[in-house]
Amino acid sequence: MIKQIEGGVCAPLGFTANGVLAGIKAGRTKNDLALIYSEKPCNAAGVFTKNLVKAEAVKLTRQNLKNGKAQGVIANSGNANACTGEQGAKNALRMAQAAAKALNIASDDVIVCSTGVIGQQINIEAIEKALPNLADGLSKTGNAAAREAIMTTDTVYKEVAVEFELGGKTVHIGTMAKGSGMIHINMGTMLSFMTTDCAISSEMLDSALRETIEGTYNCISVDGDTSTNDTLTILANGMAGNAEITEKNADYALFVEALNQINTMMARKIAADGEGAEHLIECVVKGAKTVESARVLAKSVISSSLVKAAFFGADANWGRILCAMGYSGELFTPEKVSVTFTNSKGTVEVFKNGVPLNFDEDKAKIVLTEKEVQILVDLEEGNCTGTAWGCDLTYNYVKINGDYRT
Amino acid sequence: MIKQIEGGVCAPLGFTANGVLAGIKAGRTKNDLALIYSEKPCNAAGVFTKNLVKAEAVKLTRQNLKNGKAQGVIANSGNANACTGEQGAKNALRMAQAAAKALNIASDDVIVCSTGVIGQQINIEAIEKALPNLADGLSKTGNAAAREAIMTTDTVYKEVAVEFELGGKTVHIGTMAKGSGMIHINMGTMLSFMTTDCAISSEMLDSALRETIEGTYNCISVDGDTSTNDTLTILANGMAGNAEITEKNADYALFVEALNQINTMMARKIAADGEGAEHLIECVVKGAKTVESARVLAKSVISSSLVKAAFFGADANWGRILCAMGYSGELFTPEKVSVTFTNSKGTVEVFKNGVPLNFDEDKAKIVLTEKEVQILVDLEEGNCTGTAWGCDLTYNYVKINGDYRT
Repeated sequence: MIKQIEGGVCAPLGFTANGVLAGIKAGRTKNDLALIYSEKPCNAAGVFTKNLVKAEAVKLTRQNLKNGKAQGVIANSGNANACTGEQGAKNALRMAQAAAKALNIASDDVIVCSTGVIGQQINIEAIEKALPNLADGLSKTGNAAAREAIMTTDTVYKEVAVEFELGGKTVHIGTMAKGSGMIHINMGTMLSFMTTDCAISSEMLDSALRETIEGTYNCISVDGDTSTNDTLTILANGMAGNAEITEKNADYALFVEALNQINTMMARKIAADGEGAEHLIECVVKGAKTVESARVLAKSVISSSLVKAAFFGADANWGRILCAMGYSGELFTPEKVSVTFTNSKGTVEVFKNGVPLNFDEDKAKIVLTEKEVQILVDLEEGNCTGTAWGCDLTYNYVKINGDYRT
Repeated sequence: MIKQIEGGVCAPLGFTANGVLAGIKAGRTKNDLALIYSEKPCNAAGVFTKNLVKAEAVKLTRQNLKNGKAQGVIANSGNANACTGEQGAKNALRMAQAAAKALNIASDDVIVCSTGVIGQQINIEAIEKALPNLADGLSKTGNAAAREAIMTTDTVYKEVAVEFELGGKTVHIGTMAKGSGMIHINMGTMLSFMTTDCAISSEMLDSALRETIEGTYNCISVDGDTSTNDTLTILANGMAGNAEITEKNADYALFVEALNQINTMMARKIAADGEGAEHLIECVVKGAKTVESARVLAKSVISSSLVKAAFFGADANWGRILCAMGYSGELFTPEKVSVTFTNSKGTVEVFKNGVPLNFDEDKAKIVLTEKEVQILVDLEEGNCTGTAWGCDLTYNYVKINGDYRT
């Protein structure tokens, strides 16, 4: 049984964290610099943005994770350190070195992440100055300070931790992430940091991470933009004392199941707190021939600006759902499709086997006005299901992004 | 020389048009039903939506154009007649038959187009009732009534006509289109109707149409949604008396050049009047290895929600341009790229060979506040250029689409 617990990235044995306000971006009053540390060296893995234009932190962290080892994470908000040329590369390295010095570990065992505006040089002096205090303050309750430091336009922090039994030992996994904008499906994720005390080889850790993101972080979209900085990393320090997972056995399967559970919760949290979002839209496509096909269709629906705007207006404009499925590139038979809106307030069937239904508009309004709405699409062509998560397109999304830089 | 003239779809010899208010959608006060007629039978060609979910009118018109012949166009706004099942198919056919009867031509020589809300049955009786009067009123100045009838959320009509000499004869091409929303690059277009008195075979007409859309209608995006109804058709009645174009000779090249010119103007008009738009964004990518690559990059930039929102705020957030290029799937060297904003108010260079510049923010604000802004990207990798057109993402886009159906 996989049980949800408190503590975020500090929930696993041996991990501490902290966050401080370093003053990276003028005017910020929340923390902007986060540190995560494991008292034992970790096996580590990461998934990164597929964007050709990569932030300097991404380039450095990919390099540092090549040996499958790491022991600490330094992450800032307020500046993406992307499109910053040679100076940006030097600054990313200085960030790793400053963290390494404060933690007394090797600088290539540091994971570096940045998020914020693209194309401005980062205030590296502020980061270097803040690091000794940041490291001194590391604690088992520091997840609260750390999770705040990675928030940009996020309105709530995103954090989950779970525990489960593995061969008689209790294993923990914790995670925190930032979300909000420049989020799309063709990515690793935005910034997401996972920790675990599970004993697992670097190779199996990497494999588990890649398995879990396909149906979780890769199934969310806020605005169709894949950022330059997307990074998802996991550190495993083995302190739970379980028999190390070195092959795809039953323990591996359970570990992946736990990752899926934790990352599904995080995916929902990120979509629900998309920039300006008032509604979480969950699209479930069932009756597909393959899981991949179902996911492509579900992602196309939740990525459509017109579907998103209709949800903002609580308008049961289901034709846009069919339209978005139609341009997804996946094959299906429109004449077989059924569409239903559902949540705790009720269920409204609007389209049945290719024919529009006369549905109760008042009831639809009540369902669609809720914070969370599920779009259920049945293709009636197979037995596979895929789910994707998005949010509505609101005035506030436009407002936030019309004046983000200044 | 290709000269711009008045008259829209009625500019070519032998073409008349009209528009009336048939009452297809309750509350509309503008015309909603348009008719175009050629006194002589025409060679005809069409390009249609690539959306798997196709409107009933699209299915019928594709069928009717298979023989490369047509003589009239009937088009309505207020209802897309898409996702309407068998009854919708019957209604599209009744629309063709009613127009054919009023024009005294064969029903398979009628091009049928619909635009509006998806998933509701069309008021076919209103259309049938209006058709005799609509046909009686056909005239050489009826382009004004017709161009109004195809507008949905458009704030201005889109119409262009040109004339040029071909072998000593004056040839005319006219066009009208609706634009505004559910517009994206992977399409034929929205509804667009072209007429010409040029003598040209069906085969060459089809070829010319496909050649011209790649760099015009297929290079615009308003919101990333490809509609179920996109249709671009052209009717050529040969009345200009030029030697019929039956091969890809110099006359063909000139005809394609005229099509390119007219459709570039229309593409700009459609992007500038995108739903809620306050700015026309033209992205020119030069120094590319191929035209296709340049276009893919330009399209990715003008399709980005974050770039669009930044333009709404007149914010020189050029990092988002690099980001959008980076996830386009095209290869380029970020370290070589330069980015400039330019228009009649001035030129501001913001990124030069991979390095951010300290630019004058006040001057940038002045340039970006203008109605039309050009983003000039230089890849420095080749000699090819591609252009795409889009618009900003505004509160009004969200407002219009949050409550479109009701």
